[in-house]
Amino acid sequence: MLFFYYICAKQVRMDNLKNRRTIRKYQKKDVSTDLLNDLFESAFRASTVGNMQIYSVIVTRDEERKAKLSPAHFNQPMVKEAPIVLTFCIDLRRFSKWCDQREAVPGYNNFEWFMTGAVDTLLAAQTFCVAAETRGLGICYLGTTTYNPQMIIDILELPKLVFPIATVTVGWPAENPAQVDRLPLEGIVHNEIYHDYTSKDIDRIYLYKESLASNKQFIIENDKKTLAQVFTDVRYKKEDSEAMSEILWQAMKKQGF
Amino acid sequence: MLFFYYICAKQVRMDNLKNRRTIRKYQKKDVSTDLLNDLFESAFRASTVGNMQIYSVIVTRDEERKAKLSPAHFNQPMVKEAPIVLTFCIDLRRFSKWCDQREAVPGYNNFEWFMTGAVDTLLAAQTFCVAAETRGLGICYLGTTTYNPQMIIDILELPKLVFPIATVTVGWPAENPAQVDRLPLEGIVHNEIYHDYTSKDIDRIYLYKESLASNKQFIIENDKKTLAQVFTDVRYKKEDSEAMSEILWQAMKKQGF
Repeated sequence: MLFFYYICAKQVRMDNLKNRRTIRKYQKKDVSTDLLNDLFESAFRASTVGNMQIYSVIVTRDEERKAKLSPAHFNQPMVKEAPIVLTFCIDLRRFSKWCDQREAVPGYNNFEWFMTGAVDTLLAAQTFCVAAETRGLGICYLGTTTYNPQMIIDILELPKLVFPIATVTVGWPAENPAQVDRLPLEGIVHNEIYHDYTSKDIDRIYLYKESLASNKQFIIENDKKTLAQVFTDVRYKKEDSEAMSEILWQAMKKQGF
Repeated sequence: MLFFYYICAKQVRMDNLKNRRTIRKYQKKDVSTDLLNDLFESAFRASTVGNMQIYSVIVTRDEERKAKLSPAHFNQPMVKEAPIVLTFCIDLRRFSKWCDQREAVPGYNNFEWFMTGAVDTLLAAQTFCVAAETRGLGICYLGTTTYNPQMIIDILELPKLVFPIATVTVGWPAENPAQVDRLPLEGIVHNEIYHDYTSKDIDRIYLYKESLASNKQFIIENDKKTLAQVFTDVRYKKEDSEAMSEILWQAMKKQGF
């Protein structure tokens, strides 16, 4: 009996992946370096192109540095309140340095490797998050990382060929939020070829999301006619993302890609 | 006893993440649609920006279509031999269509949203892979997706604002390969700021990789002086990735980003 308990305790319920929630409030309780390193061991087992592991992770625990990072993430409170902020970075620098030291001429300072590095980095980041959640930790991705890359580059002293692509706050949950909605599978999965959406498809796929009281409330609060307008006019405006595209591109160039 | 067995069978060993291997050979045995959809349910619970789920997945089971996809992936045998090939795509089209139908003006046809979409898509893709592996399936990422995007776009009939970013082959394992090496944690994790690598650091971090008999064999087989040269001169050449950067950029433009 104890033996079985031991086995089960070391395992993760498959259902965990389906029942997960993003956690934005954390207990004032440390996450040990041993646990963190254990999670990294899992994360870095994720698939990686040519076994090159073209990523680095910056661990921020220092209160002052978290305070500096906070504006780069539009002052989302998780940055200051989480015990750990992780910045997952594309890193072609380490590999290129190795090449330089081994009579090899690296050619990884271009857009193709930026994208390949992004894939590599994000597979490791997401594996970290799954591993963290199976140990009872809560995580939150900050989409703001690609909005203000230059600020993050400066604060974390990222040199050339290193680029921040995802930030994750990590800690022991101090909330148990309700699970949010997701689109139905038929709205996302295509068999054999992409089946373009008819207007009836769109209506059906977004029906449940639009029916939610919380989403109806957003429309009222923002004085809009539709939920889509809350996205286009309030949360994610065209002019903002066009400016950010330029900032992102300039930061990539400056980092040597 | 049976009860415990039942619980354990529905769970995933934490160690699975650490013990994982990429699987390139598959049994000639189908993966059911029910199982596939169950895995998608887990995958689509991954974190997603603004709960927008800006991705689509194309499921390829048809032999003819797999044969067509094969050259886009440099004829890697997994494409034809796996029962399922999944192409994970950034998809700003569905969301933009919804906006169009709801009196909202979408502004997601730019580089910032391409990158944000890439993050969204890859978190879902990797969660799919973890879920698949916990059920005993084997997976392999094909890094070739961003090398030949236009071929894949044409074969899978991807319309504007849809872009392939990761391909995963999935099936029941027909091999049990040895686990490959990984860099030591200290080579990847940085505390507080990026600590640039000295030449001694590089030597130490790559020591184990360079000591492996299999890697020494690659040097001999390719008639090179160092393992790094196998990467720069044989596997991932500068001129190839520069040409691919241009192809990738052109394909992005053509898809409306």
